Amino acid sequence: MAGQMTRHLQRGSVAPSNNIEDLPGFYDRVRAQSLALVAPLEAEDYQVQPMADASPPKWHLAHVTWFFETFILSQALEGYRAFHPDYGQLFNSYYNGVGEPYPRAARGFLSRPTTPEVLAYRQHVDDAMRRLMAAALPEGLAAKIVLGLNHEQQHQELLLTDLKCNLGQNPLKPAYRQGRLPACQATPMGFVDFAGGECTLGARAGAGFAFDNEGPAHQTLLGAFQLGSRPVTNGEYLAFIEDGGYERHELWLSDAWAHLKALGSERWQSPLYWSQAADGSRSRYALTGGEAPLDLAEPVCHLSAYEADAYARWRGCRLPTEAEWEHAAGSCALAGNFAGSGRYQPGGIDASPGDASPGGASQQPLRQMFGDVWEWTSSSYSPYPGFKPWPGQLGEYNGKFMANQLVLRGGSCATPEGHIRATYRNFFYPKDRWQFAGVRLARDI
Amino acid sequence: MAGQMTRHLQRGSVAPSNNIEDLPGFYDRVRAQSLALVAPLEAEDYQVQPMADASPPKWHLAHVTWFFETFILSQALEGYRAFHPDYGQLFNSYYNGVGEPYPRAARGFLSRPTTPEVLAYRQHVDDAMRRLMAAALPEGLAAKIVLGLNHEQQHQELLLTDLKCNLGQNPLKPAYRQGRLPACQATPMGFVDFAGGECTLGARAGAGFAFDNEGPAHQTLLGAFQLGSRPVTNGEYLAFIEDGGYERHELWLSDAWAHLKALGSERWQSPLYWSQAADGSRSRYALTGGEAPLDLAEPVCHLSAYEADAYARWRGCRLPTEAEWEHAAGSCALAGNFAGSGRYQPGGIDASPGDASPGGASQQPLRQMFGDVWEWTSSSYSPYPGFKPWPGQLGEYNGKFMANQLVLRGGSCATPEGHIRATYRNFFYPKDRWQFAGVRLARDI
Amino acid sequence: MAGQMTRHLQRGSVAPSNNIEDLPGFYDRVRAQSLALVAPLEAEDYQVQPMADASPPKWHLAHVTWFFETFILSQALEGYRAFHPDYGQLFNSYYNGVGEPYPRAARGFLSRPTTPEVLAYRQHVDDAMRRLMAAALPEGLAAKIVLGLNHEQQHQELLLTDLKCNLGQNPLKPAYRQGRLPACQATPMGFVDFAGGECTLGARAGAGFAFDNEGPAHQTLLGAFQLGSRPVTNGEYLAFIEDGGYERHELWLSDAWAHLKALGSERWQSPLYWSQAADGSRSRYALTGGEAPLDLAEPVCHLSAYEADAYARWRGCRLPTEAEWEHAAGSCALAGNFAGSGRYQPGGIDASPGDASPGGASQQPLRQMFGDVWEWTSSSYSPYPGFKPWPGQLGEYNGKFMANQLVLRGGSCATPEGHIRATYRNFFYPKDRWQFAGVRLARDI
Amino acid sequence: MAGQMTRHLQRGSVAPSNNIEDLPGFYDRVRAQSLALVAPLEAEDYQVQPMADASPPKWHLAHVTWFFETFILSQALEGYRAFHPDYGQLFNSYYNGVGEPYPRAARGFLSRPTTPEVLAYRQHVDDAMRRLMAAALPEGLAAKIVLGLNHEQQHQELLLTDLKCNLGQNPLKPAYRQGRLPACQATPMGFVDFAGGECTLGARAGAGFAFDNEGPAHQTLLGAFQLGSRPVTNGEYLAFIEDGGYERHELWLSDAWAHLKALGSERWQSPLYWSQAADGSRSRYALTGGEAPLDLAEPVCHLSAYEADAYARWRGCRLPTEAEWEHAAGSCALAGNFAGSGRYQPGGIDASPGDASPGGASQQPLRQMFGDVWEWTSSSYSPYPGFKPWPGQLGEYNGKFMANQLVLRGGSCATPEGHIRATYRNFFYPKDRWQFAGVRLARDI
Repeated sequence: MAGQMTRHLQRGSVAPSNNIEDLPGFYDRVRAQSLALVAPLEAEDYQVQPMADASPPKWHLAHVTWFFETFILSQALEGYRAFHPDYGQLFNSYYNGVGEPYPRAARGFLSRPTTPEVLAYRQHVDDAMRRLMAAALPEGLAAKIVLGLNHEQQHQELLLTDLKCNLGQNPLKPAYRQGRLPACQATPMGFVDFAGGECTLGARAGAGFAFDNEGPAHQTLLGAFQLGSRPVTNGEYLAFIEDGGYERHELWLSDAWAHLKALGSERWQSPLYWSQAADGSRSRYALTGGEAPLDLAEPVCHLSAYEADAYARWRGCRLPTEAEWEHAAGSCALAGNFAGSGRYQPGGIDASPGDASPGGASQQPLRQMFGDVWEWTSSSYSPYPGFKPWPGQLGEYNGKFMANQLVLRGGSCATPEGHIRATYRNFFYPKDRWQFAGVRLARDI
Repeated sequence: MAGQMTRHLQRGSVAPSNNIEDLPGFYDRVRAQSLALVAPLEAEDYQVQPMADASPPKWHLAHVTWFFETFILSQALEGYRAFHPDYGQLFNSYYNGVGEPYPRAARGFLSRPTTPEVLAYRQHVDDAMRRLMAAALPEGLAAKIVLGLNHEQQHQELLLTDLKCNLGQNPLKPAYRQGRLPACQATPMGFVDFAGGECTLGARAGAGFAFDNEGPAHQTLLGAFQLGSRPVTNGEYLAFIEDGGYERHELWLSDAWAHLKALGSERWQSPLYWSQAADGSRSRYALTGGEAPLDLAEPVCHLSAYEADAYARWRGCRLPTEAEWEHAAGSCALAGNFAGSGRYQPGGIDASPGDASPGGASQQPLRQMFGDVWEWTSSSYSPYPGFKPWPGQLGEYNGKFMANQLVLRGGSCATPEGHIRATYRNFFYPKDRWQFAGVRLARDI
Repeated sequence: MAGQMTRHLQRGSVAPSNNIEDLPGFYDRVRAQSLALVAPLEAEDYQVQPMADASPPKWHLAHVTWFFETFILSQALEGYRAFHPDYGQLFNSYYNGVGEPYPRAARGFLSRPTTPEVLAYRQHVDDAMRRLMAAALPEGLAAKIVLGLNHEQQHQELLLTDLKCNLGQNPLKPAYRQGRLPACQATPMGFVDFAGGECTLGARAGAGFAFDNEGPAHQTLLGAFQLGSRPVTNGEYLAFIEDGGYERHELWLSDAWAHLKALGSERWQSPLYWSQAADGSRSRYALTGGEAPLDLAEPVCHLSAYEADAYARWRGCRLPTEAEWEHAAGSCALAGNFAGSGRYQPGGIDASPGDASPGGASQQPLRQMFGDVWEWTSSSYSPYPGFKPWPGQLGEYNGKFMANQLVLRGGSCATPEGHIRATYRNFFYPKDRWQFAGVRLARDI
Repeated sequence: MAGQMTRHLQRGSVAPSNNIEDLPGFYDRVRAQSLALVAPLEAEDYQVQPMADASPPKWHLAHVTWFFETFILSQALEGYRAFHPDYGQLFNSYYNGVGEPYPRAARGFLSRPTTPEVLAYRQHVDDAMRRLMAAALPEGLAAKIVLGLNHEQQHQELLLTDLKCNLGQNPLKPAYRQGRLPACQATPMGFVDFAGGECTLGARAGAGFAFDNEGPAHQTLLGAFQLGSRPVTNGEYLAFIEDGGYERHELWLSDAWAHLKALGSERWQSPLYWSQAADGSRSRYALTGGEAPLDLAEPVCHLSAYEADAYARWRGCRLPTEAEWEHAAGSCALAGNFAGSGRYQPGGIDASPGDASPGGASQQPLRQMFGDVWEWTSSSYSPYPGFKPWPGQLGEYNGKFMANQLVLRGGSCATPEGHIRATYRNFFYPKDRWQFAGVRLARDI
């Protein structure tokens, strides 16, 4: 199987950003980053799963470790002994091929193993991984380790989103990081023209690490379109709310409207984490600084695709397709407000470089394509033509989720530096709001 | 608004198959066809809604009439008086723009108006429509009437599927139509090659009636692919069941597997309407003839997309995209086993002409692209580039459903003759099974 | 088994009100009464089950017939042939001992057998029953027939309550019986004193037909108490609503309050079948006359026990226990506003004789203890000391429901004449509202 | 209000077992006992709420403290400052009169305040309580403190049951207390006769502390009955299982059977916390020692009332009424296997003194009426004749729960020493299984 994996993961084998040339160093940096993220937590925070989708930090720490134990050490390290016989089931997320996973919605019910025990598990696996990496590795094995590290980076972002779901619903609104975020400055929003035509979509083999769902690269046809020069802000979204956006059925997809009504008295009235005081003033919870007055220039965040779509319709626009987005992003620099900024909240418009528009004629640059907020697209998460999942147990990594979800692009303020790229496909259900997801407008020319 | 509608519906204005040149005649034929379909029913059958999705026949008869009253007569016939002040709400399906619709799941709870009262309602509206059509009509108005008749044809198919849902779940298994279906003969299944390339997708303006969701026509790129020469049969699907298909998680999408497990003790073990006796013998319910032994050569029907997808994966294939399907269907004759055959069950393979493959080299013809079973595609139901819903209240007809559903193509044995075409996009949720939906395999070359 | 049944049902053997001396005549009268009740129905009305608890009229007609076929004819009539092999399952309500009952919530989905077929079933069973009764019957068999007829009378009341549930939720508010109910006159409400002490509760053996749950008779101790001289009226209940009764948590039991809140936007604001117009005026639906302005002097009806209890608490009172009620009712005449009045709505206060209070000193008589509205008690439906269910299959008749339900007493305007008595125990869940249930106040002295 | 409370709580004012003569000492002992119970916990254990009914240990520690702050200190200690402005809402359990309680099912989502913060809250309140108690207290205030301490004792038991729910569902089956429980010895079970007659039910005023729901004392009539000499054991219950008890509908109440079937694939097959290995051997989880082989002589525990009732019916018996139980317990010594034993599991039959049967003739003593397992009764939790809830906010303590629940009697192995008495009424829903509840048989003579 390693041979097959080599072929499928080979694009990762020379990725400088993923440091495969110094795999032990890359390993150490990613693993250390997970621990750095949980350093501010209280013991109780590790335990909480505030909804089925939002796993406890402790579980994330253990699950990413389980990945290395299950797919690397158990198969490739002679004489490796599992840390604990039950962890194989407890920390399996969804790999039916590796046994019956522990029920997702019950992860918060596992007070044992304790966090110290999970940290010991990490240490045990790290020790073994370092022993393994001390020798030269077959290419396929190295590729799988790179995959494991990219997997851990994905969970670093999820750890932050899930933690925000916990702290943000707590009436005490505790901050994850103390401090006060500086006020944002929003540039005026314009539209950037793209002429369309035949474009390449997807990750080319050999161009660095990419997930299986990013390939194969293939040609597609695009009509002429425009993209908003930056994401929509809180202030712009507030105008939609104040225009009765949440009450006007004609703005909503049928499933969206049904979902809104089914929520009953908890019916959405604003993005997640917004509050309104008795005097009408609005605030929003952020990991940094906790509850604070709404910054109107900040990119709006924690929208479902249903809300993003309704907002776009209200503006006479639409969501971009993933092909449009990827085409537009192709020449943008991979810079932005990522987790490394320590901000954990969208913003940073000033800091964002004005990228040259690849479309040509427009005067205005595209900003903030990467970082800040994931951008909902109208594209359902489907296999690219010729898509083949990875062979073996890792075939469950991505492919089986290609139903009922939509693609998001560009990464967010919770995405680890170096983890994002133009071809990266994130995916969530259109009703999901706890991710750092916002909206960039598109329209036909 | 009529002017706008003209522009948007003009492609329907010269459709010979829809008889717009003889609009009163087309009107009478479609309206009479609805009554012909319910002729075999008992009084109680008109009333039953066996699940939220499957409306009572009485409701279908009234709703299609409501369409003419609400969108045509109330707006265009001077002095028209509504038949009953409450019907406007009772028989509104989902047009929020026309008032609060009566709850869909409660349609079966309306014992009043009675069926005779609904038939009187039809007569009242037919009389007024004939008065209206006695004079020359503006083009836009004629186009809306054509739309109303296509709408009624859609509900003719739904009436049959919903009625099958009622009679098929009744332990007495009553037949809708007496008689015994002849045994099917299946040709060997092969694969037909298509070279792909740049193709046109969607209905061209001016080429006859089409729904808004079929346009605008646009170019797309296709890779080389193969399509199965005919739909999969009961016998072929049975082999999947007997190979443990319903128990093997690796064949199923994640949402599909979760759906299967959530069904608990009613977990699917076969297509809808199949039964298995204590001795292992299998039968299936059909509208014609009721319960009868499974015909292994009959196209398999009443599959969800989840099952169609799992079956295809088990065969090492996949579902076609809607672009592939439409491209392949382009040169197939619009012939097949439709509702007019009075069979109301897929079959008719012998009768199906062997269409010349447009792909060229393959020796084997494509069969049964139209009629028999709707064919699930892997394409999510999304707007085509540049899609604009119809203006005004009819904008809710199609566009708002473009989330979470998949496209089906080709029509079925319950589709009225003349109602289908290569660009026609039907759409249902991937879990839905009560439609006459089956599977045609596809694969990359 | 017949011998055992004799012993258990012997109290029914001489019941003059149940006409066991003329069993064929009693049979004919009860069976004819069922048909009389459905005479005003439209064909569609027979079919509707507006909620799981409210069975279609057609089902009631068939189920009571099934009772005779299953428990009498199949066991006691030589050579009896079942009318249809599937009806034994289709029309079994809840007797697990006789096979798997058809699912209760799906009764409305059975468009077949049709109503004419069910009427033919009734005729087939009636013919056979008359053949059986032509000869002298063993005492136990006669007792079972009396039980079957009392069972049919129970379903006559349910047919009316279930039909009201159907017609009353229909936006057209069709009347079951045309006509206008005369205005009610309510006497002033006082409290009648009862000294309490040792009393007998339950039906004495040999005193006429009684259900198993009414026995055995036994002694109980009662403290001194007062009962309201008549049921609470709409006007009195309206004062509770206008005092914010439905919003004041302190008036409600914990489960009641949770139930109210769980109803979400459909949260109860008044009794079932009440409506309020935009101008604040109130009306209520009645089987006779349909929707009509609220009659303030009419006994309030269609309350859950939760509402009855909250109302009583608001008045500084409580619900009576069933022992108090039965003790008080002991000397009241079995007269009242029953189904035979053709009114099908509580009222009739003028017609109600003023019964002498058995408690002695009070000047005011108890009125309307029988008929009009079932009166909720605070007593959970539990077995009396020494209770034994009937032997054999009929043991499922009553005993297995002795959990989570409350006892109601006195019969209603939908109860057949001659079917009620002071010891009769009706039982429903405290949340149920579709029965003709109201409230009589009680309090300690 | 204090005056009214005095009158209502005065029975508690001289209760020697509750140490009101040394209120500060009683306070310190109860408060210390709560801390002793959580001493073995890991930090993560404090946080987990494995189901809505089973609150986190941290919440219990805070809520019982909230009780003193809200009902005592805020009202009676001059200048008292609340520890934290939000705790009043966060740790309110169900007192709507004190504000909107934080949602019960979301208690486990509160990672903040942390456990150390909650312990600081306890200290803050303890300091203030000691200041308050340093002076002589009005009788009503002292009574309220006694109530607060009894309340905390109730939560000590709940803390153990909820903790068992957490640890017992964890696949690692961690023990709360290390060690191995000695094997039980069960005496043969016989039946003890009671002649019945007129008996007193309920707590007499002035006889020591009692909850409002235990009074007023009143006379009731009992028929002759028998009680099992001891609770049913695991071995006896196993025979029911092996006889197909869980599959035989005729043994179950209708609601019980519906509940079993609604559980689907998680349908009960044994008491909670039992497991069965692939080889058929059975074990059960206990707080002491964790998972261990089933001890057949141990009293069966963690039964719902539905199971207790079905078991009794299978034995040809029934559950006792609460009046029978209290009458029988009247002369039993208040000794038994309580939480103080440190066992936290029923057992201790040998240690149980053989109480003289008050009924007279029987040779066999009643054992284990107190401690070991709560004993389900068939009595619904209803107000005693003349019941009045405590005045003011504390009126919500008990009375509003008097619907849909059944009474349990006698305390358990998790009940604090000195907290139980013959008149004590515990109450849970018949489906509940996570309490230490078992079954003692009864039958008529």
